[in-house]
Amino acid sequence: MADAFERLIGALARLPGVGRRSAERMALRLVVKKATLLKELQAALLDADGSLVCCSVCGAITRSDSDPCRICTDPGRTSRVLCLVEDPGDILLIEKAGVFRGRYHSLMGRLSPMNGIGVAELRIEPLVRRIRSEGVEELLLALNSGVESDATGAFIRDRVGAPGLRISRLAHGLPVGSGVSYLDSVTLGRAIEGRQAI
Amino acid sequence: MADAFERLIGALARLPGVGRRSAERMALRLVVKKATLLKELQAALLDADGSLVCCSVCGAITRSDSDPCRICTDPGRTSRVLCLVEDPGDILLIEKAGVFRGRYHSLMGRLSPMNGIGVAELRIEPLVRRIRSEGVEELLLALNSGVESDATGAFIRDRVGAPGLRISRLAHGLPVGSGVSYLDSVTLGRAIEGRQAI
Repeated sequence: MADAFERLIGALARLPGVGRRSAERMALRLVVKKATLLKELQAALLDADGSLVCCSVCGAITRSDSDPCRICTDPGRTSRVLCLVEDPGDILLIEKAGVFRGRYHSLMGRLSPMNGIGVAELRIEPLVRRIRSEGVEELLLALNSGVESDATGAFIRDRVGAPGLRISRLAHGLPVGSGVSYLDSVTLGRAIEGRQAI
Repeated sequence: MADAFERLIGALARLPGVGRRSAERMALRLVVKKATLLKELQAALLDADGSLVCCSVCGAITRSDSDPCRICTDPGRTSRVLCLVEDPGDILLIEKAGVFRGRYHSLMGRLSPMNGIGVAELRIEPLVRRIRSEGVEELLLALNSGVESDATGAFIRDRVGAPGLRISRLAHGLPVGSGVSYLDSVTLGRAIEGRQAI
């Protein structure tokens, strides 16, 4: 098989959630549909390369001609509450929920020594500087749930601890629309501990 | 969110097996890792666009400077047995098995009226011409298993029927390394019907 094909498979397989077999199927379809799929993806990548950047303040995806991003420059939002996320995509999801009116900071990952991701690879020092300079009163840890994310949260709690800074995290509990019988016992335990008066 | 980002998500979501949510994650990672992932994928696509084509005879992926492909031009292979597959990727898989020494023909899909794929969208007429002109004695249908693939096989059997042309299909049965208790009853029935003397 041609080297160019292997190379395309390799590039696709480095995308998140894409294994070798999926990458092969994608590469195949791209070559079979060169005139449409491949050209379209090329154009989209070129466009993205030229016009998108990560916001220099919070890390969200933004147009290169509006950096800092719209959230960071929105005068209607408070900088007293800073929401810390692992990935910039999480910012979009939280924005969709429509209840948070503070600002964001994306770490661009989580501590993962097994994958060579340490403190220097994450945007932790910029976080510390923002907390000091922007008058942040509450840091909301909207990290994922898992060993590495928990360790990342614990590290950050220790690192940024400052007098007067409250640190909170997302509630654990029953997903809305889901059933108690689908919950694992740990989540169920947290949901009971965090029960709310009605 | 910027249009370029939506466009990138859209282009990725058109790849096989990629849903909206996966495409978002990929697009995000591509922008976050612009200098590496995005550049690499761009280069691989450019390379593929310039150097890969589908073989004009069988449809397999090949370098544009070796069309017809190596299999079609290999004098050591017989053109008496023609193996019909849905996708060019299946050719690679069958080649890996290492037991087939005939030639291939990729339909580039299967009949799927629900998705607007009819006879004209598939490489059926080139198949008919090849069977007539290349002295094919056996057509091996290596199609997938399912309603649409079965219908495609039936249509092709009727369409290409010629005196002296044998038409075969892949055996159904127990995957090697698997257990009887994992088989669905239809496959198990086929495996019993197709039992072989030892």
